[in-house]
Amino acid sequence: MNGFGRIFRVNVFGESHGASVGVNIDGVPAGIPLQQEDFLPDLERRKGGARGTTPRKEEDLPFIKSGVFNDRTTGAPITILFENNNTRSADYEKLREFPRPGHADFVATKKFGGFEDYRGGGHFSGRLTLNLVAAGVIAKKILGAGITVKAHLKEVGGFADPEQGLEAAIAAKDSVGGIVECTVDGLPIGLGEPFFDSVESCIAHAAFSIPAIKGIEFGAGFAAARMKGLEHNDSIVDDTGKTATNNAGGVVGGITNGNPLVFRVAVKPTSSTPKEQQTLNIKSGEVETFSVKGRHDLCIALRVPVVLEAVTAMVLADLVLLEQRVGRVAGN
Amino acid sequence: MNGFGRIFRVNVFGESHGASVGVNIDGVPAGIPLQQEDFLPDLERRKGGARGTTPRKEEDLPFIKSGVFNDRTTGAPITILFENNNTRSADYEKLREFPRPGHADFVATKKFGGFEDYRGGGHFSGRLTLNLVAAGVIAKKILGAGITVKAHLKEVGGFADPEQGLEAAIAAKDSVGGIVECTVDGLPIGLGEPFFDSVESCIAHAAFSIPAIKGIEFGAGFAAARMKGLEHNDSIVDDTGKTATNNAGGVVGGITNGNPLVFRVAVKPTSSTPKEQQTLNIKSGEVETFSVKGRHDLCIALRVPVVLEAVTAMVLADLVLLEQRVGRVAGN
Amino acid sequence: MNGFGRIFRVNVFGESHGASVGVNIDGVPAGIPLQQEDFLPDLERRKGGARGTTPRKEEDLPFIKSGVFNDRTTGAPITILFENNNTRSADYEKLREFPRPGHADFVATKKFGGFEDYRGGGHFSGRLTLNLVAAGVIAKKILGAGITVKAHLKEVGGFADPEQGLEAAIAAKDSVGGIVECTVDGLPIGLGEPFFDSVESCIAHAAFSIPAIKGIEFGAGFAAARMKGLEHNDSIVDDTGKTATNNAGGVVGGITNGNPLVFRVAVKPTSSTPKEQQTLNIKSGEVETFSVKGRHDLCIALRVPVVLEAVTAMVLADLVLLEQRVGRVAGN
Amino acid sequence: MNGFGRIFRVNVFGESHGASVGVNIDGVPAGIPLQQEDFLPDLERRKGGARGTTPRKEEDLPFIKSGVFNDRTTGAPITILFENNNTRSADYEKLREFPRPGHADFVATKKFGGFEDYRGGGHFSGRLTLNLVAAGVIAKKILGAGITVKAHLKEVGGFADPEQGLEAAIAAKDSVGGIVECTVDGLPIGLGEPFFDSVESCIAHAAFSIPAIKGIEFGAGFAAARMKGLEHNDSIVDDTGKTATNNAGGVVGGITNGNPLVFRVAVKPTSSTPKEQQTLNIKSGEVETFSVKGRHDLCIALRVPVVLEAVTAMVLADLVLLEQRVGRVAGN
Repeated sequence: MNGFGRIFRVNVFGESHGASVGVNIDGVPAGIPLQQEDFLPDLERRKGGARGTTPRKEEDLPFIKSGVFNDRTTGAPITILFENNNTRSADYEKLREFPRPGHADFVATKKFGGFEDYRGGGHFSGRLTLNLVAAGVIAKKILGAGITVKAHLKEVGGFADPEQGLEAAIAAKDSVGGIVECTVDGLPIGLGEPFFDSVESCIAHAAFSIPAIKGIEFGAGFAAARMKGLEHNDSIVDDTGKTATNNAGGVVGGITNGNPLVFRVAVKPTSSTPKEQQTLNIKSGEVETFSVKGRHDLCIALRVPVVLEAVTAMVLADLVLLEQRVGRVAGN
Repeated sequence: MNGFGRIFRVNVFGESHGASVGVNIDGVPAGIPLQQEDFLPDLERRKGGARGTTPRKEEDLPFIKSGVFNDRTTGAPITILFENNNTRSADYEKLREFPRPGHADFVATKKFGGFEDYRGGGHFSGRLTLNLVAAGVIAKKILGAGITVKAHLKEVGGFADPEQGLEAAIAAKDSVGGIVECTVDGLPIGLGEPFFDSVESCIAHAAFSIPAIKGIEFGAGFAAARMKGLEHNDSIVDDTGKTATNNAGGVVGGITNGNPLVFRVAVKPTSSTPKEQQTLNIKSGEVETFSVKGRHDLCIALRVPVVLEAVTAMVLADLVLLEQRVGRVAGN
Repeated sequence: MNGFGRIFRVNVFGESHGASVGVNIDGVPAGIPLQQEDFLPDLERRKGGARGTTPRKEEDLPFIKSGVFNDRTTGAPITILFENNNTRSADYEKLREFPRPGHADFVATKKFGGFEDYRGGGHFSGRLTLNLVAAGVIAKKILGAGITVKAHLKEVGGFADPEQGLEAAIAAKDSVGGIVECTVDGLPIGLGEPFFDSVESCIAHAAFSIPAIKGIEFGAGFAAARMKGLEHNDSIVDDTGKTATNNAGGVVGGITNGNPLVFRVAVKPTSSTPKEQQTLNIKSGEVETFSVKGRHDLCIALRVPVVLEAVTAMVLADLVLLEQRVGRVAGN
Repeated sequence: MNGFGRIFRVNVFGESHGASVGVNIDGVPAGIPLQQEDFLPDLERRKGGARGTTPRKEEDLPFIKSGVFNDRTTGAPITILFENNNTRSADYEKLREFPRPGHADFVATKKFGGFEDYRGGGHFSGRLTLNLVAAGVIAKKILGAGITVKAHLKEVGGFADPEQGLEAAIAAKDSVGGIVECTVDGLPIGLGEPFFDSVESCIAHAAFSIPAIKGIEFGAGFAAARMKGLEHNDSIVDDTGKTATNNAGGVVGGITNGNPLVFRVAVKPTSSTPKEQQTLNIKSGEVETFSVKGRHDLCIALRVPVVLEAVTAMVLADLVLLEQRVGRVAGN
């Protein structure tokens, strides 16, 4: 369904061109300072408007509808709402005829019997990542200043320099993908479970709910498959668990080991390429030439870092709250 | 915790050198033919003894303790137990001193305060994948003959030919990793959810509970990050949703699209390399030379395909049962 | 936390005197006709204003913020918001000093460290039952016309005639409790589980989340404890499972048996009695005389029937969706 | 399904006349002393053999199959198995013809398509309460010596003196019901949630999974429905939350208030009365005279106290662990 987490529990809702998108977050401890402004920096990072991102402008103001009193969390569930104002639904009517390649149009109509809100991708829209970013802001506050979650672009369109990759895409008049790397410092040893809630399991689960992500790897990741054991093993060098190398990416046996958590995700090229495509016309039953209208990002990967940070923080806040206080050992 | 799934709900338990390992499976429909022999072929595929796998021999006989009557499932929870007989715990006493690099020894003792069963990796042992294989056998029966889940070795130690990769490892007297690919044919359109239970999310969650897996990618995966949109998009060619290419690996918007589900996992080299390693001696507080004793696989990837099939079948059985029950469209 | 249900999943939020109260509902099948007006009759039944209920007037208009398109459900989560307008928070400042007997004031401040929204009971307010009623309206639609959920007052203040009980309360200038009975006709055989999700378990769980409910009994209930076996047993009289009597209240072994589901709840007298009370003054540390101001119901039981119907419908919609289609038997 | 709890998570399995019954318990902190003998006193209290209870004798020895090492919990899931030895299944063949009034026979065969294990009630058998008692023993250890859970018979067959009630039943050659009261001392303030996990909700949920329970009431319970507000309200008398009376039974707003938790359950008369009954013969389609054979309790209520304690301890252990972990107030 549309919920995630055990203690820090997040439920998202909304449609791209409906009344609103929003998020309900349960399990937030009481007493955390929280007001509208706290959300703005991360929302700004996510916002469209820069080169290579959609020209659609929304205020993206988060309205806190519950769970906050006198600018502090109350311990009751927090609901945050974003109103949708700047929608041009007419752009999308045509998509009923041409389900866009790489988009959810076709599967959504099969799954929901044609009752889905198809405008702008509806509930499948990237606009719902607003909700993730908002939840991430609160999650980061729970993690506190000692735990930092930082994601950045590592590749765009195959170039290590994102600007270069984006220029190439603009020149080619086609969309491109990218790779985003996330690093978390300051995590305690012991988060996660061997079965089935390994740290890798939980983060991968959340990361794959970000639209366009098609791969994830921790530490050495796929390169580990080509390494020898002696090369891959990270020697422990002191009793804090610090290791000489970090091929494990900070997780062994599914559990954090006190070293930086490091992972990367693969972001596919934006499905809404400006190029003409061949695809099925549902009405005619024929494969025809089609081109996507509407306003779209040329490289969705540019907007992924803050969203990836957000879902990572969500997962970790949940695991930290789970482990907190008594933790796992009786009498502690 | 140690459970997975919403309808087809799997809980694993046990330790490598304890009394037993086992699995409890809830949500299995009544009336499915099931007896001990049905488990044997997949358990045989997983079993050690071949070149490059552990010489530890266990009968690995699954005892059905509940949920089956007259050789059919009853609809009540099924518990399957594997007894541990062939254990040589003395091999592991030394590990209290040297937490093995790449293993959970160090994090386990931190998390569980030294009360964990450390023998043979205890609850973190690869022996618990017996449980996954057993659950997978039942899951495959739920999926039925029309949906096939097949995994195979794609690479061992960097070689496309597994035999060659294994020979190189034996020659080098070091462990190696590998890549395993899984393909599922026959899935209906519409499994999965956009948030947070995309098919990728659910499969990745389950796959990362298999020890030694450090990466997963769907369809074109990481290669997609270097493709252009036009190249990556899969054109729909008929009204069954069949696409000309399958870069999406059978999933768009988190939902199955009627094409084969294809994904790959990266398996790290077995942590228990025969090589000498430098690592911390907990008691002396010094980094010392250490070598792992005990019986271990040289290439754990050899045993992964049947386990990966199993967790994949578990996830898909859950999604199929969920979709059948929920009735996404009123009145259908 | 604040969620309930496995398939039909309800999360409530909001505070009595905050910005809003609302509800997020996941798992609703697509294609169900739904618009604002559909909620009004049940909301009207719940509304204050009649004799014995609070004079606080709210529009109580439900705003559908997501999950509905062209007046039909889409299969995406539905969020419904009620704005709070008519609040007089000043009435409640005094409660910081005198935690009201029978209210959550004292426990809330202990649990949430003084950060709770204490105005009007905050998140503990009966105003959150608006959310339950809204969820109930959708649940009733899922159950369809063939399954009817009807609750009515059986006793007020010890009188079988509610009017008489209420008159007595008004005369005594004190609040009174009551008993509400709920009957569900048309249920299929087979809903519920022996462990732990018996129909009684699930309905009791939901019913006890309605403020002021302190007891529940099914069929003969507490009277059964004084019956003999022969007297209590319901003889099955035909192969539809119809029984000669219904002492079981329609549930045996935790499973619906095809007879009417019948149960009763005990509602305590409204805690906010107009009478003077002795209780602790938190600031002085002394027991002092105190009387509740603010606007309150004299008999909260009057408003319970529609809320009890709602949570009952929620539970049953969840169980029906769970059981639907394949149900429990393979190949069906 | 067959699981309960969020942190202290219990899954039961098994059938009365199958290979075994058992329980899997996840979320138990590491380091708790635990061995087979610890279970015996509570299992003994539950055991049949006394006047008015079944003459079936089982060893009822709990075998710890996982999660315990060196007589302490390890933090990994604990599985406990009870073997079934003393079964006389032939007694039950006849029940295929006559579904017993008050039993699950009829609904089970409808729900599970005739594939259910019908012998001795199968998965619906009271024998599965062994699992609850075992889980309760561990739960009590988590609660510690400071929190005591005590249940006792308050009525048998309408008599306040259980012996007298039982004598009357033996004389009448019919089964009888009873009322069991449970009191918990030493609970902290603040367990439970307003929606939907009130303490009453959680305890009622668990209690109604005990076979034969048909009602539950907290504090004054149903009597509260006939009280006035001033009479019912419990005045707070000091800053520990102690109240002058305890009509609330220790719970306000769904949250423990620091006073004893007090509740009662109604237990119906054993369905398997020795009396002849009229009921449907499935094969003939006629209502015929029938009498239950097999070995049964004359008053199942006699065995309920220890089971009620067990499920109560399960619920409270879960809430205590949840509260400790969640940290309701930031920075505490």
